[in-house]
Amino acid sequence: MKTIGFQKLITIVDELLKRVGASDEEAAIVSESLVNANLAGVDSHGIIRIIEYIDSVNEGKIVLGSRMKKVYETPTTCRINGNWGFGQLVATKAVDLAVEKAHNHYLGSVSVFNCNHVGRLAEYTIRAAKKEMICLLTVNSDPTAAAFGGRKPILGTNPLSYSIPTGCGNPIVVDFATSVVSEGKVRNYFLKGEKIPQGWIVDSKGHPSTNPADLYDPPLPPEDVKIGGALLTFAGHKGYGLSLIIDVLSGALSGLGCNGDVREDANGLFITAVNPEGFISKDEFYNRVTKLIRNIKSSPKAAGVKEIFIPGEIEFREIEIRKRNGIPIPDEVWDKIMELYKS
Amino acid sequence: MKTIGFQKLITIVDELLKRVGASDEEAAIVSESLVNANLAGVDSHGIIRIIEYIDSVNEGKIVLGSRMKKVYETPTTCRINGNWGFGQLVATKAVDLAVEKAHNHYLGSVSVFNCNHVGRLAEYTIRAAKKEMICLLTVNSDPTAAAFGGRKPILGTNPLSYSIPTGCGNPIVVDFATSVVSEGKVRNYFLKGEKIPQGWIVDSKGHPSTNPADLYDPPLPPEDVKIGGALLTFAGHKGYGLSLIIDVLSGALSGLGCNGDVREDANGLFITAVNPEGFISKDEFYNRVTKLIRNIKSSPKAAGVKEIFIPGEIEFREIEIRKRNGIPIPDEVWDKIMELYKS
Repeated sequence: MKTIGFQKLITIVDELLKRVGASDEEAAIVSESLVNANLAGVDSHGIIRIIEYIDSVNEGKIVLGSRMKKVYETPTTCRINGNWGFGQLVATKAVDLAVEKAHNHYLGSVSVFNCNHVGRLAEYTIRAAKKEMICLLTVNSDPTAAAFGGRKPILGTNPLSYSIPTGCGNPIVVDFATSVVSEGKVRNYFLKGEKIPQGWIVDSKGHPSTNPADLYDPPLPPEDVKIGGALLTFAGHKGYGLSLIIDVLSGALSGLGCNGDVREDANGLFITAVNPEGFISKDEFYNRVTKLIRNIKSSPKAAGVKEIFIPGEIEFREIEIRKRNGIPIPDEVWDKIMELYKS
Repeated sequence: MKTIGFQKLITIVDELLKRVGASDEEAAIVSESLVNANLAGVDSHGIIRIIEYIDSVNEGKIVLGSRMKKVYETPTTCRINGNWGFGQLVATKAVDLAVEKAHNHYLGSVSVFNCNHVGRLAEYTIRAAKKEMICLLTVNSDPTAAAFGGRKPILGTNPLSYSIPTGCGNPIVVDFATSVVSEGKVRNYFLKGEKIPQGWIVDSKGHPSTNPADLYDPPLPPEDVKIGGALLTFAGHKGYGLSLIIDVLSGALSGLGCNGDVREDANGLFITAVNPEGFISKDEFYNRVTKLIRNIKSSPKAAGVKEIFIPGEIEFREIEIRKRNGIPIPDEVWDKIMELYKS
């Protein structure tokens, strides 16, 4: 394990992106976004992704210099063609547009299609919350999860993120997938030779399994994997219901398509920004929210629990720690990045 | 168990409401709403509630003839004071207002405070979907669930419902609480003398428990119960995150208040209606959604599964069955209603 300062990581990723032809703006937004995920402790969405992003640029899946296009717009809504630019670039501009609309009209929603992988969702909803907007972002993706009662992938990990501004300090931030876990997590268990908990996957015959290999068709990881079984949605029918709604919001309202119509590593987005001042004074809103936070933080704790956390709080603390102490990077990830960097 | 035709039930509930002074409009909306919940198989939100509603009218908690008032309004948003009228009446008007705004401006959101128990959430989002709007309704309520890592009730069961119009046939309907179960379900286990599954509650010391009595402070059910332990949110931090967001949307944007500021049987509402035509043609949207439904219905099934259901489908089938065959009512519920009816 190496520990690397975040500024140095940004510089390296920025340089790698420019070398394959990314513009200053593209390189700056993508490198900062990836390293921000590492800072927050969400390493699965961090700099490890640069390797596949560079592959995608070379394969033409990520189109450098591409400009997103508004396909249809009203004062409160907009549908955007991402034109296969970097997902981070497209998502950043889309969320800013939703915020602008909510600033002017109290509500603003933007859907996006032809968009590459956007990374950590919370980044965009936090961006809106910093501009005093409540923000919901839902994303659909290529199918890895079964419908409730199914055995074949038909839904993506279909995550959502909500951020709520608090008036002072960090926003409340929720960010989770509607599958129990990601494919990457199952892959890690496979590579370590460990069993997975019951309830994560079904095998290709539709039986529950604790063997991570049952998620795949041969050849097995670390080769390019093909899914044979399916991930399950979290909390049974509740997670399934949310996943399906997210598929419609992100896939049907954007025109990208739902279930299975989504290209690998592509994302459909649906962003809604809500201006609290459309309902109530900013002061009253923030008073309610800070009181809620105070009451939850001081609420009596369950046995063995040291602290009750507000959603997002752990990640904001991790950011401070990693900014100070550097970001831990597994040797194999660091070696791959150095290999690219020195070649 | 009695089996009673739904029309007869509506007539009885309507009559009971008028006898305590409800207007024709109030009685019609509330009786139909309660019986609709029974028709859908959601008996916990059905006519069993009429007993507490009549008590609430007699205690002045439900204010007959009260008119809801718009406290603040913009073209896209509105905050409504429900003035403690029947929850069903207030919620119906609030959802119609959100739909009207979305019809005119593509998005519409309405928050509501001083609102009594609204019953089954899906009823309102389905109402919007029938007018070709996507609709999200979130509701906060008096605290029965602990924060993730807590042991005291600080969050309500904080449910949400989403409905999506499909262009033909029934909408996709999601409707669930963010607590694992309702207090009523734990109570039923207690009354039957059965253990509850692990993960539903913590006792007053914050230990997990499978003894339903541990949710309560003496005196135990069927007396008027006081919560001693707490319900848990579903799926750990994911359900906790959603519950907290719902508390802010429904409690802070409405001004009702969050965590613990909510009176027993009161609800804060947040409704958002989204007009698909703000993004994409109606035809294209419906094509995507019907294709999604078709693909999910024909998706390969897990072992032992006979049919994959679209969220809401089971309830729509139950409505057809119960409209035809009548609504099964437990003897003790029927006896109580008859006692009221004949007195």
